[in-house]
Amino acid sequence: MTLFYPNGQPYRESGNRAEHMPPGSVVYGHRGMTLEEDLNATNQYYRDADRAIIYKKPTPVQIVHVDYPKRSAAKITEAYFRKASTTDYNGVYKGKYIDFEAKETTHANYIPLKNFHSHQVEHMERIKRHGGIGFIIVRFTQTDEVYLLDAGNLAESWNASQRKGGRKSMPKTLFQKKGFLIPQNYLPRIDYLRVVNDVYF
Amino acid sequence: MTLFYPNGQPYRESGNRAEHMPPGSVVYGHRGMTLEEDLNATNQYYRDADRAIIYKKPTPVQIVHVDYPKRSAAKITEAYFRKASTTDYNGVYKGKYIDFEAKETTHANYIPLKNFHSHQVEHMERIKRHGGIGFIIVRFTQTDEVYLLDAGNLAESWNASQRKGGRKSMPKTLFQKKGFLIPQNYLPRIDYLRVVNDVYF
Repeated sequence: MTLFYPNGQPYRESGNRAEHMPPGSVVYGHRGMTLEEDLNATNQYYRDADRAIIYKKPTPVQIVHVDYPKRSAAKITEAYFRKASTTDYNGVYKGKYIDFEAKETTHANYIPLKNFHSHQVEHMERIKRHGGIGFIIVRFTQTDEVYLLDAGNLAESWNASQRKGGRKSMPKTLFQKKGFLIPQNYLPRIDYLRVVNDVYF
Repeated sequence: MTLFYPNGQPYRESGNRAEHMPPGSVVYGHRGMTLEEDLNATNQYYRDADRAIIYKKPTPVQIVHVDYPKRSAAKITEAYFRKASTTDYNGVYKGKYIDFEAKETTHANYIPLKNFHSHQVEHMERIKRHGGIGFIIVRFTQTDEVYLLDAGNLAESWNASQRKGGRKSMPKTLFQKKGFLIPQNYLPRIDYLRVVNDVYF
């Protein structure tokens, strides 16, 4: 059976995204379909289906100057990006606190650990200690594979990297051995709760 | 026994904040001690004491324009405040997902419901349905009393206000009857987890 998108284009289960585009569309890689956008759409789907209440946190911004013009909205005229002290996504699923960070890597076989920072690694360790569920979601963009890996494995790699001569990246083989490939669909796009359900419940 | 602050000032259990100030200090009401700042300090204390991992989310900002100067940090030159679709605070305590919104009222006997918006009321109802704990924290600034009230009571008042002739505010008597007075101390400043522990566990 052939399924169709609302725009009339046929739906294909797998393959890379370019194949899903209507003929004549310009393909900008993941432009307009970043991991963040896919996860936001996924979380929206989960909320609409009442499966979980999970949101991305707003980008942390240090506000320095705000103009208050008469009869119009306050305008921020000077602000800077701040480093997040926690992770990007959190919420509740089946009564459990869920907390994760999501990153893309363009490298075929690894993700550099500099994509994460020590505050985040510590934060997820704390979350686990308090009975929450903490993990990372990583997309290998070359093959469009998305993995879930427990925060404990991130902490191990992180701690190893801090030692002299320690590896500064996480190999894809770690994700293949200790992590879980997340099924990708039309809706939800990145069905990570299916993995969460199997692994943590 | 008289306790002392690190600066040598004597500590008094109750009374208004002006009494806690060293002689000669300028008193700006709650300036520098807003409910938000007190809660941030409280949450920091809970994290340091490893009692709970709860954070305020960053203020949601719609970023319109960013300058990328050479050799210095990216500068946001045009942005606007967005309405939050969720609540300000969330995290994990004893394995449970915690979610709340905090507001101050300068009115002696009520807080206007326009301090909350429908998205937040719905959000907290969802949180409860998914096994999380949702509530509001309200400070009556005139008497410096801080109450915790379950999100269910907020939803009831909200729904009543939507009906014709319905009351558009929550009276202080509601907080006194259905809510819980939060003990205030030097550390933690607003010990809401003591109430959470009694009420939800």
